[in-house]
Amino acid sequence: MHHELAQFSQQVCEKVDNRLSQLLPSDKERPQPIPEARLVDAMRYAVLGGGKRVRPLLCFASAQALCAGENILENSSVLAGACAIELIHAYSLVHDDLPAMDDDDLRRGQPTVHKQFDEATAILAGDALQTLAFSVLSDMASSDQTSLQTSLKGNLKAMSILANASGMSGMVGGQMVDITMVRHQPNLPELSQMHRMKTGALISASVLLGAVLAGCENPSSLKALSHFSEKIGLAFQIQDDILDCTASTEVLGKQQGADQERGKPTYVSLLGLDGARAKLLQTHSEALDSLSHFTEHRLLRQIADYIVARAH
Amino acid sequence: MHHELAQFSQQVCEKVDNRLSQLLPSDKERPQPIPEARLVDAMRYAVLGGGKRVRPLLCFASAQALCAGENILENSSVLAGACAIELIHAYSLVHDDLPAMDDDDLRRGQPTVHKQFDEATAILAGDALQTLAFSVLSDMASSDQTSLQTSLKGNLKAMSILANASGMSGMVGGQMVDITMVRHQPNLPELSQMHRMKTGALISASVLLGAVLAGCENPSSLKALSHFSEKIGLAFQIQDDILDCTASTEVLGKQQGADQERGKPTYVSLLGLDGARAKLLQTHSEALDSLSHFTEHRLLRQIADYIVARAH
Repeated sequence: MHHELAQFSQQVCEKVDNRLSQLLPSDKERPQPIPEARLVDAMRYAVLGGGKRVRPLLCFASAQALCAGENILENSSVLAGACAIELIHAYSLVHDDLPAMDDDDLRRGQPTVHKQFDEATAILAGDALQTLAFSVLSDMASSDQTSLQTSLKGNLKAMSILANASGMSGMVGGQMVDITMVRHQPNLPELSQMHRMKTGALISASVLLGAVLAGCENPSSLKALSHFSEKIGLAFQIQDDILDCTASTEVLGKQQGADQERGKPTYVSLLGLDGARAKLLQTHSEALDSLSHFTEHRLLRQIADYIVARAH
Repeated sequence: MHHELAQFSQQVCEKVDNRLSQLLPSDKERPQPIPEARLVDAMRYAVLGGGKRVRPLLCFASAQALCAGENILENSSVLAGACAIELIHAYSLVHDDLPAMDDDDLRRGQPTVHKQFDEATAILAGDALQTLAFSVLSDMASSDQTSLQTSLKGNLKAMSILANASGMSGMVGGQMVDITMVRHQPNLPELSQMHRMKTGALISASVLLGAVLAGCENPSSLKALSHFSEKIGLAFQIQDDILDCTASTEVLGKQQGADQERGKPTYVSLLGLDGARAKLLQTHSEALDSLSHFTEHRLLRQIADYIVARAH
């Protein structure tokens, strides 16, 4: 990872982790005992287990591309958006890992939530993490700090983007398609469509959320960012598939070859390893093309580079 | 049910069912095949299976109490709020019925979603129903029709109310407390606290959502409505507990005595049948007291009467 991006990423992680930890206070930080303590503990476990915070990073980097010269890390609207996105991502992982779904025991090298707690708690923790995402965005927006009409509009737009990216036509729909796909081997367009919904939609939303929360209303900027985010979403998935069959379990923090073993279709199974690598580079290049629209795009460019070069 | 309320309720059901059906088009209504078809089918099944629409009714009745003379059924903001509340309620039922939770086979006399489809589909359908609730509220709010700042604020306030009522400190938190309560028999304050979170919060939200979406910003009106909604929420739960041990499985549409069998604490198990009935009447009376604040409160009063008199 580029030094500048690594530093920015570390700052984003700190900001986001602090805010998430405030939203989900630990046992010691709670002013008094709460009856739903076990739920909050499970939510904390799911969210503060050390994810890469790729989506918050995208959200802040996108906002920074539109606010040259401003210290975007101090923007509380963008921070709320970044946290909301990460909460949606975290909830989806908790539910994806459930026995009735992917039935995974490990996540980031740790027991999954239903293993550490139990299945009912994992279902509810996922549910409440999703709610918290919308809570963060709406509470932030209804506070007095952001009472200007343009800002209210930006926040509503952000909520609309997030809801549409994560629901039946986006992430959850993609997960459903993924489940049914294992039964009938898909072709490349079907696989791409599934990934666009399952992971691409939320990655796009991260980039667009950062933009609208930073106050961007320019359609051509939003279009360029949308194109960029689509391409890096695709690149991210191809690299995931490549890593699933080349990296070790230890490095991945989850079982190596898990997708292969389940007979899940991947870019590697459809294109071969070399074909997948070629497609990855082409997609990376297309992503960079769309950045010419922006003057301050160093961070976004470095993210695109990181996505194709990452080892886990 | 009072004739006037029955007529209003039927109109609310029609409005809400039409809108929900538009949001979740059936196989025949879809312009083209969609890959996530099975998910949308499961969501439709969960939402259009003929619920009583008590929460949308509360939402509209509350809005009507604040907009004397206006035909509140034509208010698209209130309709969006009513649909959002019902979507949250529907998702919670789908997840509550799961094998890892209450493990119920029947709901409203029909197979539960995981029985009719499968467990993974039920988890995802619940997830996407929750997302759709926030989608409905944010899409409505970001459309041009409601571009006034006061309206934007009302919509954001509505989203904040809905998110806070349905998340970890509200409905989902209450469900968690409910699960853990079966193991240690609670006392009356603990049982009341659990119900306030599990069902009361969303019932209160229904009333408050109707008010803020109808444009109410008056704190004393909102306080009176909040008190009213708390009381009818409690009354609703006590009557549920009474019905669970007195009505037949056929009338209930779910297994009679199910709570008793599971050893679940109820108002009846703690207060006895007569004690629960006395508490129900007292709560009903307190609910009515708070309506004196409003001139046009006939519908809200009739709802309070219905809640204590209903047979299922």
